[in-house]
Amino acid sequence: MEKPLVGIIMGSDSDLPVMKEAAKVLEYFGIEYEITIVSAHRTPEKMFKYAKEAEVRGIEVIIAGAGGAAHLPGMVASISSLPVIGVPVKTSSLNGLDSLLSIVQMPAGVPVATVAINNAKNAGILAAQILSIKYPNIRQKVVEYKEKMRVEVEEKAKNLENTGYEEYLKRRQGG
Amino acid sequence: MEKPLVGIIMGSDSDLPVMKEAAKVLEYFGIEYEITIVSAHRTPEKMFKYAKEAEVRGIEVIIAGAGGAAHLPGMVASISSLPVIGVPVKTSSLNGLDSLLSIVQMPAGVPVATVAINNAKNAGILAAQILSIKYPNIRQKVVEYKEKMRVEVEEKAKNLENTGYEEYLKRRQGG
Amino acid sequence: MEKPLVGIIMGSDSDLPVMKEAAKVLEYFGIEYEITIVSAHRTPEKMFKYAKEAEVRGIEVIIAGAGGAAHLPGMVASISSLPVIGVPVKTSSLNGLDSLLSIVQMPAGVPVATVAINNAKNAGILAAQILSIKYPNIRQKVVEYKEKMRVEVEEKAKNLENTGYEEYLKRRQGG
Amino acid sequence: MEKPLVGIIMGSDSDLPVMKEAAKVLEYFGIEYEITIVSAHRTPEKMFKYAKEAEVRGIEVIIAGAGGAAHLPGMVASISSLPVIGVPVKTSSLNGLDSLLSIVQMPAGVPVATVAINNAKNAGILAAQILSIKYPNIRQKVVEYKEKMRVEVEEKAKNLENTGYEEYLKRRQGG
Amino acid sequence: MEKPLVGIIMGSDSDLPVMKEAAKVLEYFGIEYEITIVSAHRTPEKMFKYAKEAEVRGIEVIIAGAGGAAHLPGMVASISSLPVIGVPVKTSSLNGLDSLLSIVQMPAGVPVATVAINNAKNAGILAAQILSIKYPNIRQKVVEYKEKMRVEVEEKAKNLENTGYEEYLKRRQGG
Amino acid sequence: MEKPLVGIIMGSDSDLPVMKEAAKVLEYFGIEYEITIVSAHRTPEKMFKYAKEAEVRGIEVIIAGAGGAAHLPGMVASISSLPVIGVPVKTSSLNGLDSLLSIVQMPAGVPVATVAINNAKNAGILAAQILSIKYPNIRQKVVEYKEKMRVEVEEKAKNLENTGYEEYLKRRQGG
Amino acid sequence: MEKPLVGIIMGSDSDLPVMKEAAKVLEYFGIEYEITIVSAHRTPEKMFKYAKEAEVRGIEVIIAGAGGAAHLPGMVASISSLPVIGVPVKTSSLNGLDSLLSIVQMPAGVPVATVAINNAKNAGILAAQILSIKYPNIRQKVVEYKEKMRVEVEEKAKNLENTGYEEYLKRRQGG
Amino acid sequence: MEKPLVGIIMGSDSDLPVMKEAAKVLEYFGIEYEITIVSAHRTPEKMFKYAKEAEVRGIEVIIAGAGGAAHLPGMVASISSLPVIGVPVKTSSLNGLDSLLSIVQMPAGVPVATVAINNAKNAGILAAQILSIKYPNIRQKVVEYKEKMRVEVEEKAKNLENTGYEEYLKRRQGG
Repeated sequence: MEKPLVGIIMGSDSDLPVMKEAAKVLEYFGIEYEITIVSAHRTPEKMFKYAKEAEVRGIEVIIAGAGGAAHLPGMVASISSLPVIGVPVKTSSLNGLDSLLSIVQMPAGVPVATVAINNAKNAGILAAQILSIKYPNIRQKVVEYKEKMRVEVEEKAKNLENTGYEEYLKRRQGG
Repeated sequence: MEKPLVGIIMGSDSDLPVMKEAAKVLEYFGIEYEITIVSAHRTPEKMFKYAKEAEVRGIEVIIAGAGGAAHLPGMVASISSLPVIGVPVKTSSLNGLDSLLSIVQMPAGVPVATVAINNAKNAGILAAQILSIKYPNIRQKVVEYKEKMRVEVEEKAKNLENTGYEEYLKRRQGG
Repeated sequence: MEKPLVGIIMGSDSDLPVMKEAAKVLEYFGIEYEITIVSAHRTPEKMFKYAKEAEVRGIEVIIAGAGGAAHLPGMVASISSLPVIGVPVKTSSLNGLDSLLSIVQMPAGVPVATVAINNAKNAGILAAQILSIKYPNIRQKVVEYKEKMRVEVEEKAKNLENTGYEEYLKRRQGG
Repeated sequence: MEKPLVGIIMGSDSDLPVMKEAAKVLEYFGIEYEITIVSAHRTPEKMFKYAKEAEVRGIEVIIAGAGGAAHLPGMVASISSLPVIGVPVKTSSLNGLDSLLSIVQMPAGVPVATVAINNAKNAGILAAQILSIKYPNIRQKVVEYKEKMRVEVEEKAKNLENTGYEEYLKRRQGG
Repeated sequence: MEKPLVGIIMGSDSDLPVMKEAAKVLEYFGIEYEITIVSAHRTPEKMFKYAKEAEVRGIEVIIAGAGGAAHLPGMVASISSLPVIGVPVKTSSLNGLDSLLSIVQMPAGVPVATVAINNAKNAGILAAQILSIKYPNIRQKVVEYKEKMRVEVEEKAKNLENTGYEEYLKRRQGG
Repeated sequence: MEKPLVGIIMGSDSDLPVMKEAAKVLEYFGIEYEITIVSAHRTPEKMFKYAKEAEVRGIEVIIAGAGGAAHLPGMVASISSLPVIGVPVKTSSLNGLDSLLSIVQMPAGVPVATVAINNAKNAGILAAQILSIKYPNIRQKVVEYKEKMRVEVEEKAKNLENTGYEEYLKRRQGG
Repeated sequence: MEKPLVGIIMGSDSDLPVMKEAAKVLEYFGIEYEITIVSAHRTPEKMFKYAKEAEVRGIEVIIAGAGGAAHLPGMVASISSLPVIGVPVKTSSLNGLDSLLSIVQMPAGVPVATVAINNAKNAGILAAQILSIKYPNIRQKVVEYKEKMRVEVEEKAKNLENTGYEEYLKRRQGG
Repeated sequence: MEKPLVGIIMGSDSDLPVMKEAAKVLEYFGIEYEITIVSAHRTPEKMFKYAKEAEVRGIEVIIAGAGGAAHLPGMVASISSLPVIGVPVKTSSLNGLDSLLSIVQMPAGVPVATVAINNAKNAGILAAQILSIKYPNIRQKVVEYKEKMRVEVEEKAKNLENTGYEEYLKRRQGG
């Protein structure tokens, strides 16, 4: 097995149903990754060590997801020089607005590349886009992915135009 | 000089005009404190060391202020076992709502005792209240402080009742 | 039975499913507590009496939970000199943002140590941290609690690393 | 001098520039009022006493203004049976959203008649409308006040229609 | 049957499950009321007529509930001289924050006495408090109502103190 | 079949259950429309082409619905000179506040006629009102539609007045 | 002078500095308009009359601006069948979020075409786009306006590319 | 001159005082960039062309800033396969919350790497971090930059510790 290029970490295993989408899309792009739990608040030393060593272990992009007072992405970005992508995980009380602001509003000097609330899939795609600067084969796959999305939407559009909205909705529910 | 009981830290010297109010009120209570800059994002190792060593150095309460994606209070609380009081510093774009949510919405296991936006004075008073559990002379001063506040408000009230609001507002502006 | 050190109060028995978590974690730490209903709005005189007498009855920390226009924590803090921890209870319409702001935004002079929305567990832990200033055995338990959290997260992390996310999620649902 | 029918109270003399508008409009309606400072947080016993005795002293409506974690209107409403009008005072960090939610989101059983942020004038008018149920001469004045507003707006409208917006704006700045 | 003193109106029959609580509490107080649907947006002329004629028909307080861009309470307040109580009805997308701001943020000159989101019960109680200025028997009932609330809460408190939280929660679910 | 006057587009087929209401109300008004999927983000070239050609194909009003970072309405408005109506689709995390702000807060020069969150029906009615400037028969239908709404509400009101709220609610649930 | 096609109304003359931008852009397009003050809250009968008669007087689009609990656009839309464009005017406390929600969140049946906070210019452009359905010469002017905007931006872009950002910013301040 | 690796674009020249910070930090890192104005709304075809051709012209990262309904970053990300960094520019009414949500809440498939409101400096640093995957000399500079930040903060901390907060604040103002 090749060494992973992307490290996916999250503050709690309760974030896994959200964060697994980053893993899935990286698999789709054929990019090696590792995935584990690193809590800024409950395992601060492990977090420190992870951020410190990621680069030397060959990781090139870190994806970090967390909810509430979400410090994991920002803290990893403060310790490592790698680009860090932050995924704000939706919370039960404030719907992830707290997670979003805790991740995106970083002070000058320490950016976190923040994606939409719960949108770990986009974190994976962004990691691929970042890596594609260096790896032309990943760029090719990103281009194809965008093309595939285009085709899918256009097929759905054609379908809707042909069948009308009533029939389309019936089939969507039926399928 | 006695050893400080309270450590006041902040993420940036731009927070000092806010955070100095915590120092002032501790001086008023005659409580020894130390005050310095510790940035979770720009000096993560110093932050780690500070949080790790505070207790053994004799610190009993930590007051931490930060703005935006404010990670300092929560990270210090994750490393140290001491009670940590968080001061959300007002920000220019989101008025400190980002700071507040980044500090107060901590996950189960790692509380931060959060006070109002920019209200470092209350952080100092809360530190005194916490210390007063152990130090009866501080409790006495807290009781007197509350009494003093009461008297001041009642004097203002009497003033307003006697002079009427027009005269009162004129004098306030004049003074 | 020893005298309780912590008083847990709440504005309504509908807050009990949230607030009982403070009780549970205090039991875990072996800290005596009392728990009852005190409504700032429906039993203002009882609230006044409770806040007035808590200290002389031996209470050292008060945990107060309330929702909506949540006045209980702030009012108790205005009457008593004890440290007061406020728990904003989630509400059906504004998700607890109203509770949070009503509790945390206290004016200068009267702090409430506010924790996250619905996070009564953290209120209990914070109470233990505050008491640990005076009681070294509680400090020891807080340190152990943090260590236990660390171990649990690291075990989950190892699990996830070993089994992969698909297997991990299956087991979590199965268990 | 007649006994006051309306009690205007506020949490701090810093609220007076806002709250004096309630006094002014009551003067306009010829309604006796009293105005003073009663802080729920700094003078809780005075607040209690004020709320307890207002009715027997002849007060029929209470107007209470406060900012931030604004507990004064709700606490007075919990103690007294009189109708209580709450004025959320604008705050420097959260612009009065905290004051508004702290005042309006009262639990079932204890209403506060809340007006707009900083709109103490409307609190005075509402007090007049409430009193007008009992005092026909106040009703008459309320009706005239509404008519006066109508005429003023219609005169401005005519002015604008006649002069055009450029001239109108010039004169408004000039005057 | 006596003439109604309170008019309860709402923008849509979908608001009835919320607004009926105002009716219920007025029945409890023995206050005559009428209840109907008046939409500012779909029946503007009826709304105009209702507001215009309410006072002459003997109505002394109007309770108006509406959701979203909730204009009914403010428009009725602009047309009638009676005190108008506004109930912001919770909405599916913005949880009633839109309703609250549309009702409470009235301009100088035209107040609406706003209560909490969905809290039509408090609108009924506030109407009773307003009427109690003129009708001493209603004042008496309001005083008794507050006393009844107090007793109920204190009984629950005693129950919780006696049984402990586990037993209390079991019984609450069982009952 | 006549050429469509209104183009209804949406960013994803997941918006169709919301957006179909625009289609339905246009059918009610007897206005020809077309409905399809055009994603600003996944089919930007198709979006460009759609916006570019709509006018020459005879479309006179465009209705565009999208959720989250909703760019479709604004981008179509930037390319076409036709009036564009934007429908903010409710989102799972931020309830459509993101959609609303992304659509309504357009810069000077490029307006989008924004309706309420998820209110595609109103988008259809607004399209009819816009077209009615040119087509008197549509104006007639809009007038009748408003009259029909009025009658329906007044019938419900009469029903409620006659049966009382308890009976009314029972029947509504029963029916 | 020709009869006006667009009626610009606002709730208060304090809205005129914002609303005059709608007038200016209509002048630019050579579209006749009228501009006056109509307050839903202070002149409800005039508002009613204005909305009722606008269509028969030849008005084809109404632009209505208001702030706070902004009812004018929605009320005019409920009375008239004409398309109504709403301009949320920025407020001092809630920055126009209250105005925006009060205008845009209209219930099914009565749309208001809402533009950005304080963006009366866009209201004027939208009115022109709506009128351009019927008046080809207005369509031509809208197309030219968009072209003019394009050219202006591209000239600025060329300028910035040629001079660099430092020089560009100096000149902008100088000019 | 070498070919630029980073393209900095913004929706309006009013964004330049914010966006120039991205340019400055890239200059500091010695990274070639280009900077220009590309408006999604006023120059949609130029935007399309810019996004389409950036990659073939050698650009490897795009930084796009915009305010309000900020569509530029998301639209460029939809057209190009390059990583796109979005800078939400602060707005006068909603303080950039609208800009932030319009940029960060992108749908699955099309990520924008969002940084804090107005924090174009962080966009420049993030671009450097992304490029450092491919260019080791940039990585080296990023590491040095972080080290420089650390030293600066620690010097300020030492200063504050030595002089005390009063002296420190005096000097800061004096300097």
